[in-house]
Amino acid sequence: MVQYEDIDRTFAALGDPTRRSVLERLGRGSATITELAEPFGISLTGMKKHVRVLEEAGLVSTEKVGRARLCSAGPRRLEDVQIWTQTYRQMLEERLDRFGELLERTNKECAP
Amino acid sequence: MVQYEDIDRTFAALGDPTRRSVLERLGRGSATITELAEPFGISLTGMKKHVRVLEEAGLVSTEKVGRARLCSAGPRRLEDVQIWTQTYRQMLEERLDRFGELLERTNKECAP
Repeated sequence: MVQYEDIDRTFAALGDPTRRSVLERLGRGSATITELAEPFGISLTGMKKHVRVLEEAGLVSTEKVGRARLCSAGPRRLEDVQIWTQTYRQMLEERLDRFGELLERTNKECAP
Repeated sequence: MVQYEDIDRTFAALGDPTRRSVLERLGRGSATITELAEPFGISLTGMKKHVRVLEEAGLVSTEKVGRARLCSAGPRRLEDVQIWTQTYRQMLEERLDRFGELLERTNKECAP
């Protein structure tokens, strides 16, 4: 169940364009809350909220450096999201393959 | 922006274990709302709500068949989720590679 809750949180955290942009920014290197907030033109309070959601999902780590809070890409690297997505896509493709095979067999059987 | 809204909706729709299970079930074949609701022990109204969220995200298609509503895997196949996730993971890996190279170079330069 813990695993389930984690992936729920991860998907929910990714369902916001600002939070995905924050991750893309942190993928290029660490940044303070102020540095993250600036390009989005949102308040520090607003950015802190987004960072907290990402931190709770394990997607961002933060540490206090002097008076600033430095944010970095967190320990979770979306392995679970990637595995779930790939498994689902594969399941659909295999069904389509089976459907294709069935069509082909039916066509052959019905051929004059 | 439309694309952005779509992926927001997709991620949000996937942030719920019942909705992910519904997709896994539909990946094996179509099912009515009643058939979907039964194994989860939730009400038809509850399942209808989940299906609506998935339908709005393009992940499920529904059609009225007699008095039942038949649900199938929708036109969106999580391509966008897969691409975003892979790009993010790759970015982090490349940064780690560069960090590894830097460490190696530093070690060589500092070697006696």
